[in-house]
Amino acid sequence: MLTYKAPLRDIKFLINEVFDYPSHYKTFEHGKNADSETVGMILEGFADLAENVIALLYQSGDAEGCHFKDGEVTTPKGFKEAYEQFAQGGWQGIAYPEQYGGMALPMSLNLIKSEMLGTANWSFAMYPGLSLGAVNTILEYGTTEQKDLYLPKLVTGEWSGTMCLTEAQCGTDLNQMKTSAKPNDDGTYAINGSKIFISAGEHDLTENIVHIVLARLPDAPAGTKGISLFIVPKFLPDNDGNMGERNGVSCGSIEHKMGISASATCVINFDNATGFLIGEPNKGLKAMFTYMNTARVGTGIQGLAHMELAFQNSLPYAKERRSMRALSGTKEPDKPADAIHYHADVRRMLLTQKAFTEGARSMIYHVGRYSDKLADATVRGDKKEIERWEDKMGFFTPVLKGFLTEIAQESVKNGLQIFGGHGYIKEWGMEQIARDARISTLYEGTTGVQALDLLGRKVLLQGGGKVVRDYTASIMKWCGDYALDKDMRKYVWALTKLCAEWNALTLRLAITAKRKNREIISAASEDYLMYSGYVMMAYHWARMAAIAFDKMKNGGEQPREFYLAKTQTAEFYFDKILPRTSGLADSMTTPNEVMTDMDIEHFIID
Amino acid sequence: MLTYKAPLRDIKFLINEVFDYPSHYKTFEHGKNADSETVGMILEGFADLAENVIALLYQSGDAEGCHFKDGEVTTPKGFKEAYEQFAQGGWQGIAYPEQYGGMALPMSLNLIKSEMLGTANWSFAMYPGLSLGAVNTILEYGTTEQKDLYLPKLVTGEWSGTMCLTEAQCGTDLNQMKTSAKPNDDGTYAINGSKIFISAGEHDLTENIVHIVLARLPDAPAGTKGISLFIVPKFLPDNDGNMGERNGVSCGSIEHKMGISASATCVINFDNATGFLIGEPNKGLKAMFTYMNTARVGTGIQGLAHMELAFQNSLPYAKERRSMRALSGTKEPDKPADAIHYHADVRRMLLTQKAFTEGARSMIYHVGRYSDKLADATVRGDKKEIERWEDKMGFFTPVLKGFLTEIAQESVKNGLQIFGGHGYIKEWGMEQIARDARISTLYEGTTGVQALDLLGRKVLLQGGGKVVRDYTASIMKWCGDYALDKDMRKYVWALTKLCAEWNALTLRLAITAKRKNREIISAASEDYLMYSGYVMMAYHWARMAAIAFDKMKNGGEQPREFYLAKTQTAEFYFDKILPRTSGLADSMTTPNEVMTDMDIEHFIID
Repeated sequence: MLTYKAPLRDIKFLINEVFDYPSHYKTFEHGKNADSETVGMILEGFADLAENVIALLYQSGDAEGCHFKDGEVTTPKGFKEAYEQFAQGGWQGIAYPEQYGGMALPMSLNLIKSEMLGTANWSFAMYPGLSLGAVNTILEYGTTEQKDLYLPKLVTGEWSGTMCLTEAQCGTDLNQMKTSAKPNDDGTYAINGSKIFISAGEHDLTENIVHIVLARLPDAPAGTKGISLFIVPKFLPDNDGNMGERNGVSCGSIEHKMGISASATCVINFDNATGFLIGEPNKGLKAMFTYMNTARVGTGIQGLAHMELAFQNSLPYAKERRSMRALSGTKEPDKPADAIHYHADVRRMLLTQKAFTEGARSMIYHVGRYSDKLADATVRGDKKEIERWEDKMGFFTPVLKGFLTEIAQESVKNGLQIFGGHGYIKEWGMEQIARDARISTLYEGTTGVQALDLLGRKVLLQGGGKVVRDYTASIMKWCGDYALDKDMRKYVWALTKLCAEWNALTLRLAITAKRKNREIISAASEDYLMYSGYVMMAYHWARMAAIAFDKMKNGGEQPREFYLAKTQTAEFYFDKILPRTSGLADSMTTPNEVMTDMDIEHFIID
Repeated sequence: MLTYKAPLRDIKFLINEVFDYPSHYKTFEHGKNADSETVGMILEGFADLAENVIALLYQSGDAEGCHFKDGEVTTPKGFKEAYEQFAQGGWQGIAYPEQYGGMALPMSLNLIKSEMLGTANWSFAMYPGLSLGAVNTILEYGTTEQKDLYLPKLVTGEWSGTMCLTEAQCGTDLNQMKTSAKPNDDGTYAINGSKIFISAGEHDLTENIVHIVLARLPDAPAGTKGISLFIVPKFLPDNDGNMGERNGVSCGSIEHKMGISASATCVINFDNATGFLIGEPNKGLKAMFTYMNTARVGTGIQGLAHMELAFQNSLPYAKERRSMRALSGTKEPDKPADAIHYHADVRRMLLTQKAFTEGARSMIYHVGRYSDKLADATVRGDKKEIERWEDKMGFFTPVLKGFLTEIAQESVKNGLQIFGGHGYIKEWGMEQIARDARISTLYEGTTGVQALDLLGRKVLLQGGGKVVRDYTASIMKWCGDYALDKDMRKYVWALTKLCAEWNALTLRLAITAKRKNREIISAASEDYLMYSGYVMMAYHWARMAAIAFDKMKNGGEQPREFYLAKTQTAEFYFDKILPRTSGLADSMTTPNEVMTDMDIEHFIID
C-alpha cells in the first residue's frame, strides 16, 4: 500500500536555488557534462524507474525475503528483472569515467540517484550501492590492469562488488581482524578466513561478484597497521574479463534480520581463495577510511530515504482518516469526524517529518558539492586534492550518518503514530519502514561510533575545535548578511547564540578532557553529535527560509505556496525542534564520573 | 538467546522499603490475606514459572507466530501447555474473590505478576491479560447471575475473555462505532457487526471465549452516549456453565504484525450472535473508561517489561563483547580489546536503561497502592469509593501509559545499539523486543491520545490544573523534609525548581487555551506528557535515593552495593536525563500557529 513519488520540486529547489549546482558544475571535468538539460533527463528518467519499477518491489521483497540453499542466494521475485533494467539503463555508472562504461556525470547526481533508489526500495538499493564501494576502491588504489579488468564490468553493473570487513569478533575494531593472506608463488595470495554481515555477498543478480577483502599478510604488524586489501572475485576472470573457474569463496548462510529482508546479509567463507593485492601491503586501513566515509554518507542518505517514504505515506493517511473533532472547533461538520490532520498534535508529527526530511536533504546536497570535488580528484589521481576534500567532508560525515539516521527513527515513528494501530500492521507498510530504518543506526559504525568520530577525532584531535570555529564563522558571516532583514531576524539571532554556545561547549569539553579525564569525550559524544546535528540543520533551514522569503518578495520560481511552506517549516523547526539543544548542552557538560564510577557488577544486584 | 530473571531484590525494595506495602495491606480486605510469607511465596512461585516456563517460549513463539485456518487460531508450540500450568497454578485469579475461585490477594500483587509474566513473554501474557478486562467489567457491572455464571470460569482461567471495541473506521473515536444490537424476544440481543484488532479474540488455549462487545441499541442516541455493553460468549453456556451451542461469533482473519506475533490479533465477526446486555443500556462508555484505565496501566507495565528484558540482556553483552580501548586508558591489557562497558558512551546507554527501568517500576508500584483500593471498592460494590480511586489513578494513568512506553522505545533501542549489528539479527532477540515494544505506543490509545487525556482532561478540564498543584505540593512537602540533608540537597533543589516550573507551564497553557486558541492543548500535549513523566520519575528517583542514603548510613537491609547503585543511578538521572525538561518546556510554550496555519495541501508540493 506504500507508494513513492520522487520529490523533484524539492530536489530542484536545492540544486538550483540553494546550492547553485549549475555554477558549481562548471568547476570540474564531469560537471561540464552536466548541463541543465542532461540533469533534467537524468532526474526524470531515474524518478520514473524508481517510482514505477523499483518501488513496486518494496513490500513484496520484504514479505518474501531472500532464499538460501546450498550456498546460493535467490533474491525476491522481480529483483532480477528490475536490476537488469537498472543496469541496462546505465544507472550504475552515471558518475564514473566513460572509459569504463560510465556516463562521466557528477557524483552529486549519483547521490540523488541513491536517494531515489533507496527511498523506493532500500533493500534493492543495497546491491548496486555496495558495489560502488568496490568501484571506488579499485578506482583509487587499483593498478591500471586491475582497473581495466574490473571496472568496465562493475561500472556497467554487469558484475557487482562487496566490501568484506567485519568478522564475528570485530566490526568497528579492525584491530582484532584475523583473516589471513599467504603469498602464492604466482604473485597472488591464498585468502583464508570468514567474514560476516556481508551485504550482497551472494545473490543471483549478476554473473560474478568481486569481493574487496581485508586480510593480514604473514609478516603484518599487529593491529590496524597490518591490514591489506585484496580483490577476491567469486569467479576468476581471464585477462579479457571472461569468466573462469570458481574461486574458493562461498556463502555459508544468510542472516535473519529485523528488516531489509530482501537484502542478502551473508557469511562469506574464504578457503584458500585466490586474492590479488590492491594498494600497498599493510596500508589497507587508509583505503578503508575512504570507503567508510562514502558508506557513511550513503547511510545518511538512508536516513533521508526512510524519512521521505514515511512522510509521503503519512500525509495522505492524515487527510483520509477521521477521528474526533478538533479542539479549536469542528472542521468537517458533514463528516462523522474531522480528518486527523486538523489535530495540532498530528500536525506536529507531520511537520517534524517535513522539517527533518527536507532539512536532511539540504544537509546531504550541501555535502554533494564536496563529493563532486572528491570524485574529480580521484579520477585524476590527485592525492593532495583527494585529501583536501576528504578533510572537508570529514566533519560532516559523522553528522550525516549519526544524526540523520537517529532523527529518521523519530520521523518514521511519527508515521506509525499517525497510522495508529494500523501502523503496526504489515500490509500498510509503515512498520516495514521502521524495521528497515533501524539498521541505519547500527551498520557502518553505530551512532556511538559516529559520535566519537565527530567529537574525538574530527573536532578535538584534528585541530582542537578548529573545524567548529571555522564552520560557525561561516554561519556568522551568513548571519551578518541578514542581520537587518526583519523576516530573518528571529533565525539570525537564534543561530548567533547557538554558534557561541557550540564553541563554548567544545572548548569546555576539550579542557575537561585534557585536564581531568579523557573519558568525558566518550561520555559527552552522543549529546554533542545530536547538538551539532540540530544546529547544522537549523542553519540549513535558515538558509532555505531566506531564499524562500526572497522568492516570495521578488517572484521568480513558482509556486508561491512552495516557498511559503518552506518559511513556515523553518519557523516550526526553530520553535519546536531547536529547543532540544538546551537539554543536550546541559547534559553533555555535567561531570561524567557518575557514569564511569559505578562498578559494573552493581548494575544489577539480585 | 534471551534470558529472564525476575528482579526480586528490586521488587522487594519497592514494596517493603519505598512504598511500605505491608502497612498498606492492613487497610483493606484482600490485603489482610497478604502477610509477608504469602507475598514471598507468590513472588517466588511466579518468578519460577515466568523464568523457567513462559520465558522459554518468547523467541520460539515469535518465530512460529499464530496459525489461522478455517476460522480457528492455533497458538505457537508450547503455549497451550504453559497456559495450562499457569491456570492450574491459580495465577489468573490471585486478586479476585475466593467465591469465584480466586485467591483474594491484593491487586498490586497482580500487577507484579503482570510485570513478570509480561517481561518473560509479552505475547503470551496478552491471553490472560486481556481476559482480566472482561473479569473486571463483569465484576463491576454484571448481575449476580452473570457474575455467578461467568466469573468462576474466567477467574480460574478455564475460559478467557476479550474486549471488543475497535472497528475498521474507528479506534479511539468510539462515536463512529456501528456494531448493532437488536432485542430478541427472549431478552437477549442479536449482535451484528465486525470488530478488528481483538487480542486473544480466537485461540486454542481455552474451551470458551467470552467477548465483551460494544454495540448500539436500535433507539440509541448517536455518538458515545448510545453505546451499550454485551456479553457474547463463543459457546453459549447453560445456567450451570456447561458449554452449549456455538454462537454466531467467528474469527475472520488474524493480522500480520510488526511484532507480538505469538499474540492473535483477530477480526471478529458477529452474525446475529446472541448477546446479553451488561450494565445499563447506553451507559457503556463509563464502563469502557474503567476498562481503558486498567488496560492503560497494563500497557505502562508493558513498557517496564520490555525495558527490563532489554536491560537484563544488554548488560552481559556489554561485559563480554570487546572493542577498542577505553579513552581513559587500557582496562584489560591481557585481552585484545576492552569490554565495551568501559566506554562511557556504553555506560550512558546502560545507565539510561537502569534509570528508566527502575524508575518505571517505582512509578507503577506507587499506583499499585491505588489499584488495591480501587479493586477493594469494586469487590464491595462501593460506587463512591470506586470513583474516588479512579480519580486518584486518573492523573497517573496517561503518564504510565504514554511516558513509560515512549521511554521504553529508547531503552530498548539502547539495547540494540549496545549489541551493534548483532542487535539487528533475530537470534540475539534484541530486535524482537524492539518490535514487540512498538505496539505499546499505539494500542489502548496512542501516545498522542494519552497526552491529550493528561493535559486536556485530567489537568485542565478537571479542576484547572489542581491535580498538578496538589501533586507538586506533595513533592514540595517531601522536599521540605530533606532540605537540610546534604546528600539530598541537589535533588531537593532541582525538584523545587521543577515543581514551580510545572505549575507555571500549566497555568500558561490554561490561559492561552482560554484566551487565544484551544488548539494549543493538542499542540503542547506531547511535550507536556513527556515533561510530566520526567519530573515524576525524578521525584521517584529522589525518594529512592533518600531511602538508599539512609540505609547506607544506618544499616539494615543488605547489600550496601544495592543502595550505592541506587544513589549513583539517581545522580545519573538528574544529571543526564532530567535536562531534557528544559527543551520540552521551551517547545510547549511557543505559539502553536506555526502548526495550525499551514495549509495541508502545502505540506508536499510536487
